Order: sequence, then C-alpha cells, then structure tokens
Amino acid sequence: MKRIADSTVRRLSVYLRYLEELTNRGLSTTSSDELAQHSGTTPAQVRKDLSFFGSFGRRGLGYSVAELATRIQDILGLGHEWRVVIIGAGKIGSALSTYRGFKQRGFTVVGVYDKDPLKSGKRWDGHVVRDVETLEADAAALMPDIAVLAIPAEGVQGEVDRIVRAGIKAILNFAPGRLHVPPGVTLKTVNMAMELEGLSFALTNRD
Amino acid sequence: MKRIADSTVRRLSVYLRYLEELTNRGLSTTSSDELAQHSGTTPAQVRKDLSFFGSFGRRGLGYSVAELATRIQDILGLGHEWRVVIIGAGKIGSALSTYRGFKQRGFTVVGVYDKDPLKSGKRWDGHVVRDVETLEADAAALMPDIAVLAIPAEGVQGEVDRIVRAGIKAILNFAPGRLHVPPGVTLKTVNMAMELEGLSFALTNRD
Repeated sequence: MKRIADSTVRRLSVYLRYLEELTNRGLSTTSSDELAQHSGTTPAQVRKDLSFFGSFGRRGLGYSVAELATRIQDILGLGHEWRVVIIGAGKIGSALSTYRGFKQRGFTVVGVYDKDPLKSGKRWDGHVVRDVETLEADAAALMPDIAVLAIPAEGVQGEVDRIVRAGIKAILNFAPGRLHVPPGVTLKTVNMAMELEGLSFALTNRD
Repeated sequence: MKRIADSTVRRLSVYLRYLEELTNRGLSTTSSDELAQHSGTTPAQVRKDLSFFGSFGRRGLGYSVAELATRIQDILGLGHEWRVVIIGAGKIGSALSTYRGFKQRGFTVVGVYDKDPLKSGKRWDGHVVRDVETLEADAAALMPDIAVLAIPAEGVQGEVDRIVRAGIKAILNFAPGRLHVPPGVTLKTVNMAMELEGLSFALTNRD
C-alpha cells in the first residue's frame, strides 16, 4: 500500500463517523458529494481518498454505507482488539478509559500504572494500579499495543523511553513538550494547552 | 496585523514552552537554531514566524529569553485573564479545570454546567454545577470568554448554538462530529477517537 498521509487517515475517521450516523438512521447508500459535505472537504477529495484502497462505489449508484464502513474500519485496523495500558492514574486517563467510543472501537485497557506509591495497589476504574517500574516486566504478559501517557510535564521523556523499552509501538500522549521516539514507534500528542493558547490568540487578535 | 496561520500560532506555543524551560534552567539567551531544534522546525521558519511580529533578536547575539517569552505571551493573549465555563461536569472537564497549566496561563473557570438535573446544585471541583438551561441568562453576569464543551456526542450542535447565543466567542470542544459556528466564533476540537484511530491505522499498516 502507498504511504498514506496523516491528513487522509483523519478524513477516513471523519467519513466513518458519518457512515455510522447514516447506519443509525437506516440509510444504505451515500455519495461522494454527501460525504464531502458532512466532512468539510470536496467530492474530488473524497473520491481520491477512497481510491487509495481500490475501487468502491459504482458510478451513478454511489457507495454502499455498510460496505464502505466495513472497508474503512479494516483500513483503520478497527476490526482488531487493541490492548492499551494507561500510564498515569489521573483524570485524563480515567476520562479516556471510561469513554464509550474507546471500548466500542476495540480499545481495551489491560493495565493502569502510576509512579505514585500511594496509588499502587488501589482500584481505579475497575483496574488495580501498578507501579510504573513494573511496566517492562509486565509487558511480556500483557502484550500491550498502545500506551496512553497522561502524566504531568516532568519526566515525560523518561516514561516514553520506558514505554519504548517495553516494546510498545504506539503512544497517545497528553503531556506537553517535545518528545522523541525511535523509528517504528508512533507518537500522537493531544496538547490541550496549545489548543487553549490557540483560542486565546483568536480572542486577542479578532477584528 | 497580517492574518496568521494556525500552524504559526501552534509553533509560537511550542517556542514559548521551550523558552519557559530555558528560564527555569536560568538561561538568558537563545538562537533561532536552538529554538528550531527543540521545536521540530527550521531556523529559517523560526525567523520567519518571529518576523511577523516585528524584529527581536540581534544578529550574532540571538534572542533574549525573557523578552521573547513576554512578546509571545502578548501575541497569544496570555497576559489576559480568560473566563471559562465548562459545559459537562464530567471527567474531561474536571481534568482540564484542575490541570496546572490552565490556571497558570490565565484561564479561570467561572462556571460549570450540566444538563443532568441530578448534577445541578452539586459541588464539583470547587464550583456549584448549574443547569445548562441557565447559561444564556448567567452569561450576562459571568461574562465568559471561552466555553469548554465536554459532553457525549448527542445534541452537541444544540449546545454549540446555545453557547453562541450566550455571546461566547471561543469554544474548546471534546465531542466528536462536525459542528458549525457562525463567523466570529472560534471552535477548536480535540478528537480523542480520531487520535486513537490514527494509532490503530499506524499499528495496522506498519512495515
């Protein structure tokens, strides 16, 4: 498969969300025009994005909602069960692990870690919090695919390095700062401070 | 001031974080090379970004950390106190309102709202939760600048419309789906489902 840009992957997520909405409304076909309109893009872009993955849809008939949804789920790897460890037994980790869409899309929390000895051994959203020092040893048994890193700013790179040593290939990070991962490990950062600063900028500089 | 791209604003946030790190380490000067290296961009891009806002820095001497940090804070509107209402008294809203960087950068929670009558009147992170139906009436007194929207997927557009009617000009949204705001209102969405799907895609399609 060709190298696919992040922006394409994001649009596939958006298309999928709309296809799920159509399914809920009992609709069975859609068009590139309709997909484009609900995804903030152009029909040509929709057709281009979907053409990466072979041909679906028939000229004049549009796309089968069920077929296209299944195909995008496959492309995004959502048929798979992804095993997730949460590093940082705080509110963000909890918000994520109890978020409905999380389980629904095949993400299962298999372990929760914290460096605070007061949290170790405590129950947290149905899991027992373990000392983060045990992550590498545990990983052999837990086989986690994804680490969610939800800790304060201090020592984040050290935790990233630990996650990498544990053999985990994908990280969703909520901590600020620039982090380094080796090739073959995917890091995505959700930076709430940056989003807030973007709003502050917009409020300050509006006409 | 010229129209500044979102990507520039995001880089300014990144530069600011690095300048704060330098301040904490007691360093007083930096260079476009150093800023670039710690921000994942090029020295030319750093100079271009900063040139939007007039000239700082002197050839061969670099930038004063304190001066540049203050200037970026001003540009981002971080000298200001921003009044924030949280819609949705759940874990995400709580994670955000108790997040250290939130208060530190001038964001103050002035009200918390929920549509669940069981939550109304209850204390939540030091605030009393109010019925979201009262938002428009309350806004005249509270004068919120920013609404954080942290509710499940259903009825999100209705809440966005309510926020807009309340006269709030900036929204940080955590709910999925495509939302519409009128011109003059800035909407930023943090889409955790999309980030997770991006990781799922990377894990599925790695070599």
